[in-house]
Amino acid sequence: MSLNILFAAKSERWTEYEPHLRHWMAEAGLEGRLAPDLGPAEEIDYIIYAPNSGLLDFTPYTRLKAVLSLWAGVEDIVDNETLRVPLTRMVDNGLTEGMVEWVLGQVLRHHLGLDHMRAQQSGAWVPRVPPLARNRPVTVLGLGALGAACAQALAALNFPVTGWSRSPKTVEGVTCLSGPEGLEQALARASILVLLLPLTPGTDTLLNAAHLDQVPRGAVLINPGRGQLVDDEALLDALESGHIAHATLDVFRTEPLPPEHPFWAHPAVTVSPHVASETRAETASWVIIENIRRDVAGLPLNHVVDRQRGY
Amino acid sequence: MSLNILFAAKSERWTEYEPHLRHWMAEAGLEGRLAPDLGPAEEIDYIIYAPNSGLLDFTPYTRLKAVLSLWAGVEDIVDNETLRVPLTRMVDNGLTEGMVEWVLGQVLRHHLGLDHMRAQQSGAWVPRVPPLARNRPVTVLGLGALGAACAQALAALNFPVTGWSRSPKTVEGVTCLSGPEGLEQALARASILVLLLPLTPGTDTLLNAAHLDQVPRGAVLINPGRGQLVDDEALLDALESGHIAHATLDVFRTEPLPPEHPFWAHPAVTVSPHVASETRAETASWVIIENIRRDVAGLPLNHVVDRQRGY
Repeated sequence: MSLNILFAAKSERWTEYEPHLRHWMAEAGLEGRLAPDLGPAEEIDYIIYAPNSGLLDFTPYTRLKAVLSLWAGVEDIVDNETLRVPLTRMVDNGLTEGMVEWVLGQVLRHHLGLDHMRAQQSGAWVPRVPPLARNRPVTVLGLGALGAACAQALAALNFPVTGWSRSPKTVEGVTCLSGPEGLEQALARASILVLLLPLTPGTDTLLNAAHLDQVPRGAVLINPGRGQLVDDEALLDALESGHIAHATLDVFRTEPLPPEHPFWAHPAVTVSPHVASETRAETASWVIIENIRRDVAGLPLNHVVDRQRGY
Repeated sequence: MSLNILFAAKSERWTEYEPHLRHWMAEAGLEGRLAPDLGPAEEIDYIIYAPNSGLLDFTPYTRLKAVLSLWAGVEDIVDNETLRVPLTRMVDNGLTEGMVEWVLGQVLRHHLGLDHMRAQQSGAWVPRVPPLARNRPVTVLGLGALGAACAQALAALNFPVTGWSRSPKTVEGVTCLSGPEGLEQALARASILVLLLPLTPGTDTLLNAAHLDQVPRGAVLINPGRGQLVDDEALLDALESGHIAHATLDVFRTEPLPPEHPFWAHPAVTVSPHVASETRAETASWVIIENIRRDVAGLPLNHVVDRQRGY
């Protein structure tokens, strides 16, 4: 069977992904055409997709079997009513590894006071021994693939980790809470709070003034999830009052974060330019091609999005 | 049996350790006196010891059964010829945990470019995605309790870890090398180099100009081991030429590091005021009392120093 696979993402992504996708297609014994421009929509079998590609109307793709998202977050496509075939999200080993490294690095940065250490290079010898990780409770909101991996890596370093998700989950070594009451408890325990929730109507602006209030005074916020999880104004107020000691943010409501946004200049905010959740072309291409191989072989797709749930 | 246990360390340590030591003595069912001043030397059974206590002549302690060091590094006492009873070194869970956290935090800081991130807060959105840990080789010199624990924790995060020790060792998940040829290979692989060797005549100034030359250009040095492992002048030269990109140093030949030392002002050096290897009173007190309990019960002592080898 000869497949027609459309690559619908920005052109720089094509340059990055093409060799990897062709490599894994050959490995999987898949034949056919793969290109960012493939002629008649009604002949396309699969679409490899990024929401910023501009493709919004899937109606003409009458032969389409599945849409394979290059992104882990699918909130920009999940409500698209013209999409009537299965949608898969990216669950990339490379992305998970990168996220775990970023989250662990940021948690340890705050835990060990590395910014303070860097600022203390003027000749004054002032030892400040941090507590052990076993005495520094960390809360991770969101226990999907990324959240669970980060929670486990933190627990392996002896941090007492509380994880929270909407529906009950089990992650080894992690105290897992769920539901609204669980959220209150999870927030109340957080010396460091990590946001790795998917963006859904239920999580939009979840970290509002009321929820920020439930976090212990002096806690640190780390958001590598989605900018829309946080009420920016409420966060700025909490930073102003010292209730939140520091926020390290990798994602924002508008990206790039505009130069005039108060986060940039705020001494208690570290802006990171959306680097934590970068999908790696090599490993992501394997995930995509493996899914096409499975579908062609009549096997169920991996990582299919539940469109009701939103992720 | 009623014991006389002398606490020979600085007075602030006594304040810190006394409650923990008494707690663990009671738990172990050990009776006797414990104090920093106990009267006749010839009645002392055990000495809990720190080299900066000023106690250097052990000759009067004729009934002494063992000296239990509060420090992991014993180079200041190992050659003391007046000491004729077993000497144990500190192998403290808390110390190991703290060291692993510090080393992981520093390795991730350099791996993720956290200093660069902190310096980029002027409104310019310039994403720099780091490589994955699996593509960042780390070398750990020294595979004792601390080195092995750090090497394993780094390997668990996917860093390809090479460990080196004088005599052959095996650490799961770590490529272990030994001897002079092994050292050359271990240095040549290091994108990040961590020093956790004990200080012995064989390791004194091990990281000299010749060995620094064997490290790949642009590597980062992290030294939480001993200041004397490094030739300071050779390191400054290597930093000047850019051969070593950055050095994060927690230990120094003279401590506190004098304000006029060039390390302080050097932009490619981070001075950390000896906080990585802090012994924690709670866990260290247990280790000491457990050893006294073992000796009283006729069991072999843990962590006895081999005075020939020097650690």
